[in-house]
Amino acid sequence: MKHKSLAHQTCPISRCLNVIGEWWTLLIIREAFYGVKKFADFQKRLGIAKNILTTRLKQLVKDGILQLDNTSGKRSQYVLTEKGRDLIYVLVAITQWGSKWLFPSGRPSTRLADKQDLLELAPLEMRSRNGRILGAGDIEFL
Amino acid sequence: MKHKSLAHQTCPISRCLNVIGEWWTLLIIREAFYGVKKFADFQKRLGIAKNILTTRLKQLVKDGILQLDNTSGKRSQYVLTEKGRDLIYVLVAITQWGSKWLFPSGRPSTRLADKQDLLELAPLEMRSRNGRILGAGDIEFL
Repeated sequence: MKHKSLAHQTCPISRCLNVIGEWWTLLIIREAFYGVKKFADFQKRLGIAKNILTTRLKQLVKDGILQLDNTSGKRSQYVLTEKGRDLIYVLVAITQWGSKWLFPSGRPSTRLADKQDLLELAPLEMRSRNGRILGAGDIEFL
Repeated sequence: MKHKSLAHQTCPISRCLNVIGEWWTLLIIREAFYGVKKFADFQKRLGIAKNILTTRLKQLVKDGILQLDNTSGKRSQYVLTEKGRDLIYVLVAITQWGSKWLFPSGRPSTRLADKQDLLELAPLEMRSRNGRILGAGDIEFL
């Protein structure tokens, strides 16, 4: 299905979805956080068709989320840029919501932990500028 | 394009994308946070085709993100459930990332503020169980 592009909308949610709004895109980014770098490894781990993976990786490089690292003299490797690494907050939010609401029984496979003690992260908190913790009902969409 | 369902994957990111991984879905949820409740209002504000909106709303009710409120005696109204309201963290993460990286010039239209003082929220922080603030490099994907 061809989408209307949301790239020029003035809402940051719309623009963000224009970049990461495809399933495969966020799953590729998840794999990059895992440390996956090579085309063949993305392909094997995601079970994604080669032509779709090629298109998505090219777009992610164009969008400045991944960059090509050819310095090792081996095949091209894809690594997250700063802009890409900054998507960690989106992945954490999605992981925590999914773990809370979509696993009525059983344990989620992906868990996000603090490297130091391997304990799971605390749930994300929304805070006002002066540090008060906010709930969904305290937020105003301007 | 027909996707392979991710509903039974053990990764919470995959399962979450299976529920909210369509552009329209998250934009409908954004509108619900704005306070939009009626079919006609979703339709007008999003400029979405009626058949697509019907399908998406039905699916969101089925997934327990929206619920139908028929108590007012008027037309059906769609309101967020607790599970739906809990997606605020995903919307905040997406809004903050989009505002930071996709608005090289100009000001994003959607901003999330504390209702009390209408100042924008502080950026989300990831914390360990004992409250240490973590960066992307401090997170281990288990």
